Amino acid sequence: MELVTKALVGNRYALARLISLVEDNGADARAALATLYPHTGQAHIVGVTGAPGTGKSTLVNELAKALRAQGTTVGVVAVDPSSPFTGGALLGDRVRMRDLAGDPGVFIRSMASRGSLGGLARATSDVVRVLDAVGFTVVLVETVGAGQAEVDVARIAHTTVVVEAPGRGDEVQALKAGLLEIADVLVVNKADQPGAAQAARMLEMVINQNALPPVGGDRGGEASDNVWRPPILKTIALDGTGVPEVLEAVAAHRDYLRTSGTWAEREQARIETELRNVLQQELLDRLLARVGEEQIQAWVERIAAREVDVYTAVEAISSTEKRP
Amino acid sequence: MELVTKALVGNRYALARLISLVEDNGADARAALATLYPHTGQAHIVGVTGAPGTGKSTLVNELAKALRAQGTTVGVVAVDPSSPFTGGALLGDRVRMRDLAGDPGVFIRSMASRGSLGGLARATSDVVRVLDAVGFTVVLVETVGAGQAEVDVARIAHTTVVVEAPGRGDEVQALKAGLLEIADVLVVNKADQPGAAQAARMLEMVINQNALPPVGGDRGGEASDNVWRPPILKTIALDGTGVPEVLEAVAAHRDYLRTSGTWAEREQARIETELRNVLQQELLDRLLARVGEEQIQAWVERIAAREVDVYTAVEAISSTEKRP
Repeated sequence: MELVTKALVGNRYALARLISLVEDNGADARAALATLYPHTGQAHIVGVTGAPGTGKSTLVNELAKALRAQGTTVGVVAVDPSSPFTGGALLGDRVRMRDLAGDPGVFIRSMASRGSLGGLARATSDVVRVLDAVGFTVVLVETVGAGQAEVDVARIAHTTVVVEAPGRGDEVQALKAGLLEIADVLVVNKADQPGAAQAARMLEMVINQNALPPVGGDRGGEASDNVWRPPILKTIALDGTGVPEVLEAVAAHRDYLRTSGTWAEREQARIETELRNVLQQELLDRLLARVGEEQIQAWVERIAAREVDVYTAVEAISSTEKRP
Repeated sequence: MELVTKALVGNRYALARLISLVEDNGADARAALATLYPHTGQAHIVGVTGAPGTGKSTLVNELAKALRAQGTTVGVVAVDPSSPFTGGALLGDRVRMRDLAGDPGVFIRSMASRGSLGGLARATSDVVRVLDAVGFTVVLVETVGAGQAEVDVARIAHTTVVVEAPGRGDEVQALKAGLLEIADVLVVNKADQPGAAQAARMLEMVINQNALPPVGGDRGGEASDNVWRPPILKTIALDGTGVPEVLEAVAAHRDYLRTSGTWAEREQARIETELRNVLQQELLDRLLARVGEEQIQAWVERIAAREVDVYTAVEAISSTEKRP
């Protein structure tokens, strides 16, 4: 495929078109991804996540700039589960990342919601794969908000940076949302604001607690010197303070993953999840091609009328599947 | 099933056990749900969502108390996508909702993450269905965080209340996260804090913009007097200020849904989504029962080795599916 060939040799216009193709999941997308796939597996994929208002967009910007200053190429994927109306990012990443404009060593892409959970995860994963294949050394994946979407991104990422800000009670909230448990690196941004030291201490306490063996269980006898303890770092993303230390921690985590064998383990787990998700979608598509939308609609009517529940309906639909 | 019979006549212990059964998705869960299903469809399902720190837990508590004061029975489902470690809620809703303890007209349940996106949505939907079937008039579904999980809850709920708080830049963040577009009622909580009036004005502006026909399109000629405009209400959940007005707006939205026909439309859409999700899972389970886990693992190895990409693998697996 010409687009793929051009993108692989560094044609930015081809890359942008290829990403759109992949994001739209059109007819040619699968062929393109199959061609690209042998070129993947080199990039360090870094998720940056946290609650709204923590300044993580600014931090991602600074991380990208610092990486470029080191000569490292960077892809940025901003996952923006927004707006059936606008179909895209509202705060224009092109504006936000102005400092990086015109630099061929960086590529920035905003993802809109695909309308469904699986859709967004699939599209994000495919776009990250394209950036990996064409040779970006680091791919930063920024997610808005907190919750399940972030847990999903943690599955794509090798390293997950969780961003907090002082004085918002977010230490508890992040805990509640399960964010701390996916964190490989913790950042208290806006460290010049009141409460930053307290926020860092609270995170430290929580991390120490998590590091204890869970009550009534053990961790399979892992050697304690082979366990990654998330470092807690302070930044002021607005002026770049602390950003080099975050990059160092991210690089240290990559080295840990490689030497401990966790890199391969995480990749296996990610591939397995993805294989199941794509398989589910494919099986449903094939069933629908046989059974037909009208029959599905008829079942929806019956369920809505409380004649039958959804599980009984599914049982019936999937049992008749093999009839011609 | 005895548990179902007992739960239907108001046995709380049976109800709690039934919910656990359904949440765990065990062998008896489907039979129980099938028996319960004809009893569903009566409750008004109200989602309450917003970013961390907006005080929505407190608001949910106050809404439940106010509904009880009116004599309305209330189920509360707190969706807490947290903690592979604790497997449950961290800030114990039983503590939070102490005011309501011992009242048989209220039932509170915290959901832990099922480890996967689809799993949590499925379990939440099933638990809501149980509470609906046993006769709770209103079911409040509270979600932590912002993002895709909330969009999913909006699919379960008839009415979605989006909670904001002043001075956190959340107006923009909520917009970015797509929350405003799923809001049927908007609440600016912590209305005694600086910036509350400004936050409300900003939300108003955004809502007015959304109400305009999108550029280059039209809305299929809906009569403007038959369109719901999300009201923007101010509350101080901590002392209950504004809570009755939120309940009035929620009731008005229910009436709007019923008179406009939107209630049935939303239910159709929700059922269709659920039917597809359950069907996907069932098809995958059936395939795995035939193909076997070892073969899936072999494909995972090949994908990890970059011998084949995931889409090509899925094509191969699902094409050989029909061989005995």
